[in-house]
Amino acid sequence: MRYGLWYWPGIQGRGEFIRLPLEAAGIAYVDCGRVEGEDMLVANMAHHAAKRGPFAPPYLELDGMVIAQVANILLFLGDHHQVGASRIADRLWLNQLQLTIADMVTEVHSVHHPVAGSLTYEEQKDTALAVAKVFREERMPKFLTHFDEAAKSGPGEWLIDHHWTYADTSLFQLVEGLRYMFPKRMAALEPAYPDLIRIRDLVADLPGIRAYLKSERRLPFSQNGIFRHYPELDAA
Amino acid sequence: MRYGLWYWPGIQGRGEFIRLPLEAAGIAYVDCGRVEGEDMLVANMAHHAAKRGPFAPPYLELDGMVIAQVANILLFLGDHHQVGASRIADRLWLNQLQLTIADMVTEVHSVHHPVAGSLTYEEQKDTALAVAKVFREERMPKFLTHFDEAAKSGPGEWLIDHHWTYADTSLFQLVEGLRYMFPKRMAALEPAYPDLIRIRDLVADLPGIRAYLKSERRLPFSQNGIFRHYPELDAA
Repeated sequence: MRYGLWYWPGIQGRGEFIRLPLEAAGIAYVDCGRVEGEDMLVANMAHHAAKRGPFAPPYLELDGMVIAQVANILLFLGDHHQVGASRIADRLWLNQLQLTIADMVTEVHSVHHPVAGSLTYEEQKDTALAVAKVFREERMPKFLTHFDEAAKSGPGEWLIDHHWTYADTSLFQLVEGLRYMFPKRMAALEPAYPDLIRIRDLVADLPGIRAYLKSERRLPFSQNGIFRHYPELDAA
Repeated sequence: MRYGLWYWPGIQGRGEFIRLPLEAAGIAYVDCGRVEGEDMLVANMAHHAAKRGPFAPPYLELDGMVIAQVANILLFLGDHHQVGASRIADRLWLNQLQLTIADMVTEVHSVHHPVAGSLTYEEQKDTALAVAKVFREERMPKFLTHFDEAAKSGPGEWLIDHHWTYADTSLFQLVEGLRYMFPKRMAALEPAYPDLIRIRDLVADLPGIRAYLKSERRLPFSQNGIFRHYPELDAA
C-alpha cells in the first residue's frame, strides 16, 4: 500500500504539511504531482469531481478514495499511523491546533495576494504593503503567542505526551516558512517564544526529517509558494 | 449535561454553524456569550489560555474541557450525537466539506475586510470593491459548483445517506449568508445550483430549524457579522 499525494509540482505549499509527517514516520507515498506533472493533477481532479472530489490540492488517494483538506488528511493519517493521538481529548486538541495553523497559513498567503490569487503580486503590491504591516504587528504576535502557549501546555517536550505528532511537524513548517518570509521580524520575535522554537528544533532533529531535508524531495522555499520573501514586506 | 457555547454576543458569525445542528437536533446548550456578555467571554478565554485554550471563539465548554475551531466542534458533535456520520469515509467527507465551507467563509470576511480586521470597512472600502468583484466573478462560481456537485453525490437527498448532518446545516447557513450579502449575484447564480438549493430548502424545513428561525435565539444578519450587505459590493 502506498498513498498517492497530489499537489502542485514545484512548490512546498500546503502539500508540505502532509509530506512532513509522512517522511518523519517513514510512511510510503508517491508524490504524484511531481511524478506525473500538473496536467495529470488537473485531469485527476476533474476525474474525481463528480464523486466526493477535492476542491483543491493537496489530496491523498488510496484505492480510488480521495481525502482532501490538509487538516482532514492529517486527522486521517493520525488515526491510521503513529502520527496523531489516541485519546479523544488529545485528538480534538491536535485538530484544533492544526486548524489554527491553517488559519495562519491562509493569512500568510493573503499578505502577498490580498486582492486576488489570479493577479500577480506586483499588481496588488500597494495593498500587500499595508496588509504585511498589520500581519507583522498584530497577527504574528497573536498567533505565535498561542502556539507558544500550546507548546508549553503538554506534560512532555512535545505538544502531547512524549511523541511527536503531525501538529508538531506543522509548527516546524510554520516557523520555517515565517523565517523565510519575514527574517527580520522573526529574528525580533523569536526570543519571546522559546517553547515554540523548542518544538521546531526537536522536529528538525527527527531522523526522518533530517534525511528528508537533505534530500531532493524537499523543495526549496520560493516566490511561487505560500511563504514568499519580498524584502519590502518585512521589518523588525 | 448542557454544552456551553461561547461566541461573541450580538452576531451570528461563526457561532451560527454550531447553533444550527444543536437546534436541529434538540441538543441542550447555553449560549454563554449572549447570557453572560462579552467581558465574560474575554475573561473565560483568558482563563483557558494556558491550558489548551481557544485561539478565538466559537468554542464549546463541557466539564471544563474546551473544544474550539468550528470544524473541530462539529466533528466532535457528529461523533457524539446524531448530527454526523458513522462510517469513516463519510466522516472524512463531511469534515472535508466543512473545511471547504470554512475556507469560503474566511474569503467572505476578507471581501469587506481585505486589509485588517482591526480597521473599519470604510477605511478599506476601495480595496473591498476590487476584492468583491473577484469574489463574485471567480470565487463564488468555483465554490458553489463544488458544493452543488457535493449535493448531487449522495445516494439520497441529503449530503450522505438519508439523514441531515452538520454539513447540510452549514450549507444552509452559507446560502443564507450569501443571499443576504450578495442578493443580486445570488439571484443570478442560484438557478445553476439546484442541488445545493435543495439542501438549503430541506434544512429550512427541519422542525428544529423552523422553530429556531422563528425564535429570538436566531439573531438577524447585520453589518457586524461575517456576511454583510454593502450594496456597492454586489452586482449580478
